[in-house]
Amino acid sequence: MARLSSLLSFSLALLIFLHGSTAQQFPNECQLDQLNALEPSHVLKAEAGRIEVWDHHAPQLRCSGVSFVRYIIESKGLYLPSFFSTAKLSFVAKGEGLMGRVVPGCAETFQDSSVFQPGGGSPFGEGQGQGQQGQGQGHQGQGQGQQGQQGQQGQQSQGQGFRDMHQKVEHIRTGDTIATHPGVAQWFYNDGNQPLVIVSVLDLASHQNQLDRNPRPFYLAGNNPQGQVWIEGREQQPQKNILNGFTPEVLAKAFKIDVRTAQQLQNQQDNRGNIIRVQGPFSVIRPPLRSQRPQEEVNGLEETICSARCTDNLDDPSNADVYKPQLGYISTLNSYDLPILRFLRLSALRGSIRQNAMVLPQWNANANAVLYVTDGEAHVQVVNDNGDRVFDGQVSQGQLLSIPQGFSVVKRATSEQFRWIEFKTNANAQINTLAGRTSVLRGLPLEVISNGYQISLEEARRVKFNTIETTLTHSSGPASYGGPRKADA
Amino acid sequence: MARLSSLLSFSLALLIFLHGSTAQQFPNECQLDQLNALEPSHVLKAEAGRIEVWDHHAPQLRCSGVSFVRYIIESKGLYLPSFFSTAKLSFVAKGEGLMGRVVPGCAETFQDSSVFQPGGGSPFGEGQGQGQQGQGQGHQGQGQGQQGQQGQQGQQSQGQGFRDMHQKVEHIRTGDTIATHPGVAQWFYNDGNQPLVIVSVLDLASHQNQLDRNPRPFYLAGNNPQGQVWIEGREQQPQKNILNGFTPEVLAKAFKIDVRTAQQLQNQQDNRGNIIRVQGPFSVIRPPLRSQRPQEEVNGLEETICSARCTDNLDDPSNADVYKPQLGYISTLNSYDLPILRFLRLSALRGSIRQNAMVLPQWNANANAVLYVTDGEAHVQVVNDNGDRVFDGQVSQGQLLSIPQGFSVVKRATSEQFRWIEFKTNANAQINTLAGRTSVLRGLPLEVISNGYQISLEEARRVKFNTIETTLTHSSGPASYGGPRKADA
Amino acid sequence: MARLSSLLSFSLALLIFLHGSTAQQFPNECQLDQLNALEPSHVLKAEAGRIEVWDHHAPQLRCSGVSFVRYIIESKGLYLPSFFSTAKLSFVAKGEGLMGRVVPGCAETFQDSSVFQPGGGSPFGEGQGQGQQGQGQGHQGQGQGQQGQQGQQGQQSQGQGFRDMHQKVEHIRTGDTIATHPGVAQWFYNDGNQPLVIVSVLDLASHQNQLDRNPRPFYLAGNNPQGQVWIEGREQQPQKNILNGFTPEVLAKAFKIDVRTAQQLQNQQDNRGNIIRVQGPFSVIRPPLRSQRPQEEVNGLEETICSARCTDNLDDPSNADVYKPQLGYISTLNSYDLPILRFLRLSALRGSIRQNAMVLPQWNANANAVLYVTDGEAHVQVVNDNGDRVFDGQVSQGQLLSIPQGFSVVKRATSEQFRWIEFKTNANAQINTLAGRTSVLRGLPLEVISNGYQISLEEARRVKFNTIETTLTHSSGPASYGGPRKADA
Repeated sequence: MARLSSLLSFSLALLIFLHGSTAQQFPNECQLDQLNALEPSHVLKAEAGRIEVWDHHAPQLRCSGVSFVRYIIESKGLYLPSFFSTAKLSFVAKGEGLMGRVVPGCAETFQDSSVFQPGGGSPFGEGQGQGQQGQGQGHQGQGQGQQGQQGQQGQQSQGQGFRDMHQKVEHIRTGDTIATHPGVAQWFYNDGNQPLVIVSVLDLASHQNQLDRNPRPFYLAGNNPQGQVWIEGREQQPQKNILNGFTPEVLAKAFKIDVRTAQQLQNQQDNRGNIIRVQGPFSVIRPPLRSQRPQEEVNGLEETICSARCTDNLDDPSNADVYKPQLGYISTLNSYDLPILRFLRLSALRGSIRQNAMVLPQWNANANAVLYVTDGEAHVQVVNDNGDRVFDGQVSQGQLLSIPQGFSVVKRATSEQFRWIEFKTNANAQINTLAGRTSVLRGLPLEVISNGYQISLEEARRVKFNTIETTLTHSSGPASYGGPRKADA
Repeated sequence: MARLSSLLSFSLALLIFLHGSTAQQFPNECQLDQLNALEPSHVLKAEAGRIEVWDHHAPQLRCSGVSFVRYIIESKGLYLPSFFSTAKLSFVAKGEGLMGRVVPGCAETFQDSSVFQPGGGSPFGEGQGQGQQGQGQGHQGQGQGQQGQQGQQGQQSQGQGFRDMHQKVEHIRTGDTIATHPGVAQWFYNDGNQPLVIVSVLDLASHQNQLDRNPRPFYLAGNNPQGQVWIEGREQQPQKNILNGFTPEVLAKAFKIDVRTAQQLQNQQDNRGNIIRVQGPFSVIRPPLRSQRPQEEVNGLEETICSARCTDNLDDPSNADVYKPQLGYISTLNSYDLPILRFLRLSALRGSIRQNAMVLPQWNANANAVLYVTDGEAHVQVVNDNGDRVFDGQVSQGQLLSIPQGFSVVKRATSEQFRWIEFKTNANAQINTLAGRTSVLRGLPLEVISNGYQISLEEARRVKFNTIETTLTHSSGPASYGGPRKADA
Repeated sequence: MARLSSLLSFSLALLIFLHGSTAQQFPNECQLDQLNALEPSHVLKAEAGRIEVWDHHAPQLRCSGVSFVRYIIESKGLYLPSFFSTAKLSFVAKGEGLMGRVVPGCAETFQDSSVFQPGGGSPFGEGQGQGQQGQGQGHQGQGQGQQGQQGQQGQQSQGQGFRDMHQKVEHIRTGDTIATHPGVAQWFYNDGNQPLVIVSVLDLASHQNQLDRNPRPFYLAGNNPQGQVWIEGREQQPQKNILNGFTPEVLAKAFKIDVRTAQQLQNQQDNRGNIIRVQGPFSVIRPPLRSQRPQEEVNGLEETICSARCTDNLDDPSNADVYKPQLGYISTLNSYDLPILRFLRLSALRGSIRQNAMVLPQWNANANAVLYVTDGEAHVQVVNDNGDRVFDGQVSQGQLLSIPQGFSVVKRATSEQFRWIEFKTNANAQINTLAGRTSVLRGLPLEVISNGYQISLEEARRVKFNTIETTLTHSSGPASYGGPRKADA
């Protein structure tokens, strides 16, 4: 009889499971009755820093369809070039450094000027001319020029001093927001004295990611001895760079180098991870430190692909979209500001508010959002479609909170300063506010409010018109009774 | 031994299930060997009407990736503002009323004219000026103006008569098709004497819906005591409005009202549902009844977002795409007619045919469709990719039939009048007809027809050229033998 | 006890399964630790040819989201018109023939000239005028003109000689790449002496396919006695043409023919399959054989839909993107060449290399690819995101290899000639090369290479600059040691 009951309980479990599996046919489960402030679940340690990965299987990130990563690069640390199959939007939360992206088929526009010296026997032959050819071919990603004598000239220059040419290198600093295409390799170098902290969102659910919904870094150099621990079923295997997958003989032929160097490229004896410490100077060609947003030159084809601007700084209050001296500011970055975001279908919002300032309740009309706290802490309430409060608590520096489409959220700073970055899965994410001058209640007729909430027209008028701010307000004073309060801003 | 056989049957069940679950990895199961005319599965009763929800788990709706809802609003009933995370296309099947949508960041362009009276001490301070500011800010969804003394001025006007300003309110009537963006709140009011019946399709499978594939209304006011019964696992919880999720103190601070009014906004003691009966007059500011499609003014930015036309009437035969006095008419609404549909990726087709008129067999080349019968009944046959007749029967008023992409369908009116609305999941859904003057067989060479069907060239010519109508034909007479028949139209 | 252990093993199995099912919620499983050169898994035999279908459930095709089919049409074989719910890109691997596509609502622009003879009593009445009407209606897919007396005129012409009008018919030959919209019917006829071999990729994962992820041919004529064996659960049912699903009476009324002919259209007694042998001449109206790419006339609306070019030849080395006389050539076809690909979101790459030529290691930045070998064989290595070699072997004529987004691949011809076609799931697929003049390593600063691989600047310079080709290189010689080699091209 005991076994019979076991069987019965089995069949019950099976039934429950079958029942559950029906719902599984709908991807992106968003049955969220509770949200949590999330911390990283995996830490990949490297020689000169660490990579902290949030669990993308957490229901709230699964609902949002994104993955989230934090890179902490120590002084003189180099995050070796890697790429993803997803679009990526990054934010420099702390520190400063250098960044390079290698866009396929684009020319090496950063050249050591000494290569133009007459009689220098440069390793690039007719160096400048070649650069121009490269530009012309940028469009196709493939091309073929005359390369007759370059090889020989290169051979002549073997014994000479160091000269180089490479693609664009940019200075980055706190507040920079960096858009990266799928498949484009990117590296970071910390040339400051404090750690460089970069947080990145990977849009797994976008059609640009044509693999499955797992974040998959492809390493060009370095390795990851712990393996891709965030992918189920791959824990045991250390992750190597992609050159490691080819046989050394193939690499030797492809790079026209000896097999020993080819083996070196595979980083097999390397256990420094993917963030390494640079020995000696790091003398890449770089422009002088920018003091303001650079004016990009516009010249046809180049503009669209090879020199498209991919970076903007969100920490300059003079560019803020909402600014109140006593309360704080909010800046947004969408595809109107940075056209490349139209392709990535991502946008960002940077907020910085003072103690007791409140961001009025609002929801994202057409995007999921993830909110990462860069400084301080705040009290946040989030409400789901069922009218349930699914989050009511503190979020503090280094924590992540997912805010799904349509979910209403209100934030109130509880430390001296509360600063955050929000990544949104739409190139032009739209906000609807519940209260305030551009809010949904302001757009409704008084009769709808009065009848809907069973309040008098007088009360409805207060609900509709008392708050005259649009986004930020004070929450310090006592709740007002009856009359409208003078705006503090 | 009995237990062993139980175990065996278990393992069989498990194997079958495992087998089935492999197929589950492909979303949108369309293994449809039978279609049904669907009726609503859930009815949410409210004070002044009811909301009828079709089961979106039904295989044919799951294949189409849409959800379907019917709103029945009694006279003087107000459907309280709510929004969805999906794009929505609605059709007014019966009755007339008012509709308002609140687009984020747009200005309140409907103003009671008395607010401009000099010395009136209007609650909006320099009211007109503010409206203009609002327009300027509509672009960002967020903005901040000078709002110095408005609060005080508002306070002065407390004791005066009622004045209001709000966003656009439109008259709606039978035949109106209404497009609504995700996240945009919408309300309806029945100011006629008969019930106002609106049917809506929600595009769950579209990339615009970034939550899962469940229809999720977010209520701004009102509630739903029965809960979101269509979502598995949430049956037990009543659904409340989203203000209910915030603490009253937070609402009081956000709206700058007292806590008691804030509690009132939460509708907790309310059990009227989401369609309420308006007591007394419903005097929202509204334009005079339109007699024809309004000429929209075009002025730059406003045109694109805040004043974009979202409504069109499909019941005017003078705008029909196909019109035959004795047979009926067909009107389509796609993104060429209503540009906003380009973003929503939805379109609609309205048909009205008389007894025994037949819509020639056709398939949707690039869209799924759901067909809702507004009047009368018809005999319909649907054929799937395997050449099987998956539907062969009557559909009558109030029923829904899903017609997946590529499935061929033929309709024949069996009542005096048969009228239907078809929603399609493509901004420019294309039809391919099997027979008739613009049909696929007409485009094939005679040799292909003759060889393909093993008929003589003479017969092939009859198959190809006998039917000279394009969409509608008579099906009353006896089938013709041999010669082509004169078109009845 | 034995039973208890059975129960335990059951619960274990269930747990493992439950674990596995979590991962199932992420579609497009790409956990690929091994790739294989794939052969067709199903063969559908027909009277004059066969259809070979690759198993789209194979993990690597499932990851790519595509299905792959090979049509082998014997001389005088006619592939009867059929359509898919997916976008399709086809490549003529061998042979030559005729192709017709029937675009919905477009006019029959191919007319037998005799229909214009005065007094000829054409079956189309005022034939030319009707053609123009058809053009005007092409835009809507539906329309209705005056057709008063045509029927009678048609009746007069019954006894006369054969005349026809139909949509465009094109000559196709080896190297032609053909784009087909979802829902558009297409037929092929082999008018050569050798078999006509066509391979097609179906983009199941695209948003254009609104059904599930199964390839679903809809047959207009013919049938498939073996059934849709590639869809699980449908093996047992033979597949019939879609006319078969309607009752003969309905067909008779729709086509205005007698019921006996209507029954004939259903091909029920037919067991020739979907590729039939044409008896006698196949005298469709066709233009003379083209010797070069036709100049398309441009005239407004027609250009965009009805006369949009859908075919291009990739076998002409004079149009190659990469060309090296001693090594081979590579041609790409993207939406810049063939604008219709922008809608289909597919592109193609044709390669032809000689013995020992090597395609430098590269990855697809923004697309999945499937590589089909049309001639010869090659040694291929593929590396996944974990740095593992997931394929290392020969691929030879008729085999298919899937190359997921981001996976690096190197190819080396091992037969006299190696030729292949690659279909990519992006209208503008971009390639990143690892080695060579436009490679990612060339774009990196020497310091990054030197530090990343722990090699000297001198070695880094060799890695970066030694290979000066962009895509193709020789792999025959011994690996060079130290110095750069002169380019062989």
